[in-house]
Amino acid sequence: SLMTKGQKNVGVDVELISEININNETFIERNFTESEILYCSNTASPQSSFAGTWSAKEAVFKALDTVSLGAGAPLKDIEIIRDAKTGAPKVQLHGDAADAAIDSDIRGFQVSISHNDIQAVAVAFAEI
Amino acid sequence: SLMTKGQKNVGVDVELISEININNETFIERNFTESEILYCSNTASPQSSFAGTWSAKEAVFKALDTVSLGAGAPLKDIEIIRDAKTGAPKVQLHGDAADAAIDSDIRGFQVSISHNDIQAVAVAFAEI
Amino acid sequence: SLMTKGQKNVGVDVELISEININNETFIERNFTESEILYCSNTASPQSSFAGTWSAKEAVFKALDTVSLGAGAPLKDIEIIRDAKTGAPKVQLHGDAADAAIDSDIRGFQVSISHNDIQAVAVAFAEI
Repeated sequence: SLMTKGQKNVGVDVELISEININNETFIERNFTESEILYCSNTASPQSSFAGTWSAKEAVFKALDTVSLGAGAPLKDIEIIRDAKTGAPKVQLHGDAADAAIDSDIRGFQVSISHNDIQAVAVAFAEI
Repeated sequence: SLMTKGQKNVGVDVELISEININNETFIERNFTESEILYCSNTASPQSSFAGTWSAKEAVFKALDTVSLGAGAPLKDIEIIRDAKTGAPKVQLHGDAADAAIDSDIRGFQVSISHNDIQAVAVAFAEI
Repeated sequence: SLMTKGQKNVGVDVELISEININNETFIERNFTESEILYCSNTASPQSSFAGTWSAKEAVFKALDTVSLGAGAPLKDIEIIRDAKTGAPKVQLHGDAADAAIDSDIRGFQVSISHNDIQAVAVAFAEI
């Protein structure tokens, strides 16, 4: 077998921008932090930004390679923050997501986001 | 030059789901293992699953960074299995693909797959 | 915090192939090297090749995680060359991009490109 334990996990996610309903307040508030909502709402295309941020959360979740974060914690515990200088997305985990990362000996995550008019795509990987 | 030998190769692949013809038995049987066919056929959307799995094989092939796997070995030797606990895709190489990995000192691969209604995308990288 | 300094940065980029205007000579000559133009112009689908190469440049730029490369240096300083044996894309930096990489202790980049009829996608990551 060529599979090895202790490798850095990768995660990819692609979302149709049209599928993200930013008027669904329950969805938004369950899954996005206050600062994410503030950031995405103030871009030129809020729907694209929410789609990109959602895509990044999903990619990090996949790289976390865990069964689930528990019923009470959707993707709000995987927060995508923006570097003050470069604007690049960074990952900040909270609650169950942070615990899952510690359990898996993950030191941190790298994530990148891109979107065009149709889709958003994100890639994340975990540093072990 | 900033290029370095011995780096972990990355591979990405994107496929239009509509381009995968799951009724083409020759294509399916040449490129997918029995357990892949069983897995993909039993998902909610077999066509999306075959497209995602195909995309993962292509991404791993790119990360393998080899010239070719030889005429007799299409992408069947790059098998995408699913983690029993998390459902996450894992890579298992056979035959020429396994030999190519050993020749390149690749210890293993990480892969992730995502799809929406239109496309499947996969990212793989090799651990050297 | 689970964020760590000194990690390998990842970059992803997705482009609609239709958005790349290969008849815009100013855009092409500002952003592509002579050998890139030669390579892309001689493929079966020049527009797809330019879109894929552009996507790779953007992905590397994101993985470079710098503020900007300066007004005079668009993406021409991030050159995507092709491996003579496998055809795989490789990264060669020049000018400001090379300086930015050195400043960030980046030893090299890995990049992969894929496209279908609609989109091109690329993933890059930096070796630190």
